[in-house]
Amino acid sequence: MNIVIFIMGVSGCGKSTIGQMLSQKLNIPFFDGDDFHPQSNIDKMSSGKSLNDDDRYGWLVALNDLAKKQLQKNSCIIVCSALKKSYRDILNKDIQNQVKWIHLAGSFNQITERLNNRKNHFMTSALLQSQFDTLEKPSEALEVNICLSPKEIVEIITKEIKMKSEFGLFGLGVMGKSLSRNLAQKGFKISIFNREAKGTEEDVAINFKNSHKELESAQPFSDIEAFVNSLQTPRRIMLMVNAGKITDMVIEDLIPFLSDGDILIDGGNSNYLKTKERYDYLKSKHINFIGVGVSGGEEGALKGPSIMPGGNKETYNLVKPYLESIAAKDANGLPCCTYIGEEGSGHFVKMVHNGIEYVEMQLLAEVYTILKTMGKNPDEIADILESWKTKADSYLLGITVDILRKKDGNDWLVNKIVDKAGNKGTGNWTTIATAELGAPSTLIAAALFARYTSFYKEERIQANKNFGMEPSKLNLDVEAVLNAYQFARIINHYQGLKLISEAGKAYNWSLNLSEIARIWTNGCIIKSDLAMDLIPVLKVNDNILTHKTIINQIKALKPSIKKVVSECILNDLTAPCLSESINFLNNYGTANSSANIIQAQRDYFGAHTYQRTDDDSGKFHHTNWN
Amino acid sequence: MNIVIFIMGVSGCGKSTIGQMLSQKLNIPFFDGDDFHPQSNIDKMSSGKSLNDDDRYGWLVALNDLAKKQLQKNSCIIVCSALKKSYRDILNKDIQNQVKWIHLAGSFNQITERLNNRKNHFMTSALLQSQFDTLEKPSEALEVNICLSPKEIVEIITKEIKMKSEFGLFGLGVMGKSLSRNLAQKGFKISIFNREAKGTEEDVAINFKNSHKELESAQPFSDIEAFVNSLQTPRRIMLMVNAGKITDMVIEDLIPFLSDGDILIDGGNSNYLKTKERYDYLKSKHINFIGVGVSGGEEGALKGPSIMPGGNKETYNLVKPYLESIAAKDANGLPCCTYIGEEGSGHFVKMVHNGIEYVEMQLLAEVYTILKTMGKNPDEIADILESWKTKADSYLLGITVDILRKKDGNDWLVNKIVDKAGNKGTGNWTTIATAELGAPSTLIAAALFARYTSFYKEERIQANKNFGMEPSKLNLDVEAVLNAYQFARIINHYQGLKLISEAGKAYNWSLNLSEIARIWTNGCIIKSDLAMDLIPVLKVNDNILTHKTIINQIKALKPSIKKVVSECILNDLTAPCLSESINFLNNYGTANSSANIIQAQRDYFGAHTYQRTDDDSGKFHHTNWN
Repeated sequence: MNIVIFIMGVSGCGKSTIGQMLSQKLNIPFFDGDDFHPQSNIDKMSSGKSLNDDDRYGWLVALNDLAKKQLQKNSCIIVCSALKKSYRDILNKDIQNQVKWIHLAGSFNQITERLNNRKNHFMTSALLQSQFDTLEKPSEALEVNICLSPKEIVEIITKEIKMKSEFGLFGLGVMGKSLSRNLAQKGFKISIFNREAKGTEEDVAINFKNSHKELESAQPFSDIEAFVNSLQTPRRIMLMVNAGKITDMVIEDLIPFLSDGDILIDGGNSNYLKTKERYDYLKSKHINFIGVGVSGGEEGALKGPSIMPGGNKETYNLVKPYLESIAAKDANGLPCCTYIGEEGSGHFVKMVHNGIEYVEMQLLAEVYTILKTMGKNPDEIADILESWKTKADSYLLGITVDILRKKDGNDWLVNKIVDKAGNKGTGNWTTIATAELGAPSTLIAAALFARYTSFYKEERIQANKNFGMEPSKLNLDVEAVLNAYQFARIINHYQGLKLISEAGKAYNWSLNLSEIARIWTNGCIIKSDLAMDLIPVLKVNDNILTHKTIINQIKALKPSIKKVVSECILNDLTAPCLSESINFLNNYGTANSSANIIQAQRDYFGAHTYQRTDDDSGKFHHTNWN
Repeated sequence: MNIVIFIMGVSGCGKSTIGQMLSQKLNIPFFDGDDFHPQSNIDKMSSGKSLNDDDRYGWLVALNDLAKKQLQKNSCIIVCSALKKSYRDILNKDIQNQVKWIHLAGSFNQITERLNNRKNHFMTSALLQSQFDTLEKPSEALEVNICLSPKEIVEIITKEIKMKSEFGLFGLGVMGKSLSRNLAQKGFKISIFNREAKGTEEDVAINFKNSHKELESAQPFSDIEAFVNSLQTPRRIMLMVNAGKITDMVIEDLIPFLSDGDILIDGGNSNYLKTKERYDYLKSKHINFIGVGVSGGEEGALKGPSIMPGGNKETYNLVKPYLESIAAKDANGLPCCTYIGEEGSGHFVKMVHNGIEYVEMQLLAEVYTILKTMGKNPDEIADILESWKTKADSYLLGITVDILRKKDGNDWLVNKIVDKAGNKGTGNWTTIATAELGAPSTLIAAALFARYTSFYKEERIQANKNFGMEPSKLNLDVEAVLNAYQFARIINHYQGLKLISEAGKAYNWSLNLSEIARIWTNGCIIKSDLAMDLIPVLKVNDNILTHKTIINQIKALKPSIKKVVSECILNDLTAPCLSESINFLNNYGTANSSANIIQAQRDYFGAHTYQRTDDDSGKFHHTNWN
């Protein structure tokens, strides 16, 4: 991949000298930014006046254009003082992931001495001081001190550009491997690391590199120090390791080799509260940290996952080019990666994404049970689900069709799979968050509990006998089942988004739910047409159940869910999520609920007091009931 | 209340001297234990032989009988070396809460010197050493060092007996006040403490003491040091303060004034994991700590609550007489207080008790909604519930009858109560525990979420309009509603007890579920006939759904719950716990569930692997599905 090397720094730091020497060494063109000033700027400077930001604007855009044009044929070097962040933003525009910044840094005295030795210099001490005042130090640049000789400086830059990787991937499990290949395919120079464990993990990184052509220029490591030193600064290291204690251990292993301003990116399914803790801890060590939810499984990670990054926005901007390049693209070609918000918000949104996923999977399992009880075999069920793609397409629907069609000898493979559903913690965490935040995602809890109950296999077999349960054929048509399925999916998305919205309020994150729905339209496991439909709905209101389109859908689907769920209950058929979806709407749509009875009971035995409907002051009352 | 003062210690410590002086000072009879030896023991000792434990047994029983007899008319002093804990257990038998132990303590050299000064002493140095070897220091005694003069020793003991309280109650909220009165009514000498807060809490302890006759001899305090110093050692201090940070702050406030071996009893609704942390923390400071769940509300705390203590068993034994005296009594007159198990198990069981309570309350609220929708007014509903007492009596059923009958002007009071149900955290914690431990108490989660949803009052009113929900009359008879109610209650108790049982396994507590059901038969909020029925069931098996009686009940009730829930769903009526109860049984009774579909999906997108029904090895398989 071609790159632009911008060499920046105050007047007199030696930018042009270094730029020219580097140009010879790397054999790429060199441009002095000053040569691109319009005549008006030159005249102004010649008359001893300083340029203002308006004067500079057109010039910086011209340099950005120059860079873009050059990038199409070759790498190049451009020299420009670029003292302010806003100047660099203009220079960077649309080419962030192909720009490398070099900052030649020296003290006021160093520069003054150097200027005094120069012939014809026109810098006054006051002018130089104003340059130092203006300088906003770049966090994204390689900083090289001008006390070194020009030869040494060029050596360092060359090594950094030629030898060092721009992005590090730590941990080559299923997801880490796929992300590495994805990054390499996008032309990024990466270092990859996997630990060495005798007998179980040997030569993982090197073998992985050798088995994929796109990893030709990737640098493989099993030594942490060498891995860290192989990266350009500020270092960008993405951790793809098991969430929990392992993540903390890996962070501790890395810290001794990191420098101030380096960036750790946690791409695992970490608990959002731990992400906040780690952010604070690493901040105390001058290390940047962002927590990034990545969804898409093995295939998504390779071809383009949905990415949910949370943390400090400035830190995010330093890794944005990488994350947005590897992310899936939505229907408009925009990356399915957007800055979510502060602290652990990225991991929170990913956690709820997984909670919604639990429900989407459970609903398909319930639909399967219903259709099976209606007498259909897996192929017939697959045909039915296939036909639903026009109305209710989703990634999970699609893979369920594939799954149902898979044969194993004379039987379907699904019939050979033990019915105990595992879980890796995010459904559990979402249920805990829903309890903690008082925002009931009842479907997620129901889906989690259904998985737990599936583990009671022995008890279930026993209970089936004891209670003599044998569901008979159901009096339902397939259309009603589709409607019930769609109804429950809307409630599921309402609840998940509501939980995210409540977390935003509780933790003071400013979240954009419509953007969140947008990045769920491709790359991730819950990718679906429904997520697409929700983008415009969520632009109007965070609560989708108040939007006319959704209200009309719910009203149209409601007779079917009532029919399907009551039929299941009357026939001993389990359908926890479908059932909970209509129960939730009935609860949610009750203007005057029986919570008054509960308040009276609480006041009766615990003197917990209650409010009165005829007292708008909100005062709390107590009654001696007996 | 009469008491027995046992003065103990090795031979030569001065027991008889002190006993006689104390007898004169307090004007109560004195008995020298040695006078009650049978002739055989006297002969054996005279011949220079030591007594063995068999020799001592009858003698100790005789002293215990003596104490019991004396207690019926007066307090008394009994002197006895009582070196071993097993001896003291015999002396204590059945009179624990009326015994005060005084240990006269000195070093080997102190005693030797004292014996050398005595005429006619027959102790050899070896005999004395064997007494020291035998001595098991009592944690329950007031220890007084014999370096003090007899007069000083008698002074200290008198002060301890006459002036000091045996039990301290810290925090005079609703529950603290009731427990204080309960303790005082049982004849215990107590100190009571409440903080002083200008304007909000002034003179609470003294005013409280003065307003209740039974608190005549209670000592009121608003100064922590004075409160602590008013207690006999080892001090027994029960904290009745808000769970959470307040509890920690109070503990910190107390620590500086406590002595080694003092006992803090946390009677608040503390989180069971925090109880374990506090236990460990206080252990490091040589303070004993037990976490005690107390249920019964204001009235129960006064007349006899159900008490669920957890922690170190030996510590429990030191507070047992107090807790068991104030607890409610079951049908057989046994206290509704039993040692639950180690660590936070007492608070865990109380937490689940509260979770079960959430469901019992919610079910009554749902029954009310159904009967109301069937056209009944609150008085008519009260009559119906009243009639259920023969088949399904419980404390909560009883108070709901009272509540429904309460008038406010021309209307029923319940009609004036705002329908937002509060919560104080235990339902939330139970739901979290159920998620953490993988033991689905789905009804508790449903009851919690129903309370949360009740708080969306504005959204509910809006949704009611938007979705046009207006439940019509239901085609149900009252008998079916009762049966559905009973069905759901059995499932609720199954789930709560299962959660306790799973926690026992996870945390290595040895729990007795039948005993837990027994202490829930009186005093507590979930007291019910059902809890009574479960005592024998749980003696056979921790899982009540495998017991013949329960299986038959469930089978008999099932047609009703199916009818009631399907009718609710078809008529837009919310009944989350009733509905979840049948859904859970349907799930639990599914021999072959659709979790195979979920396992296939997980393997498809995340390579999470699955097990096969035709591979008993339990090996995990992976398939390339597409």
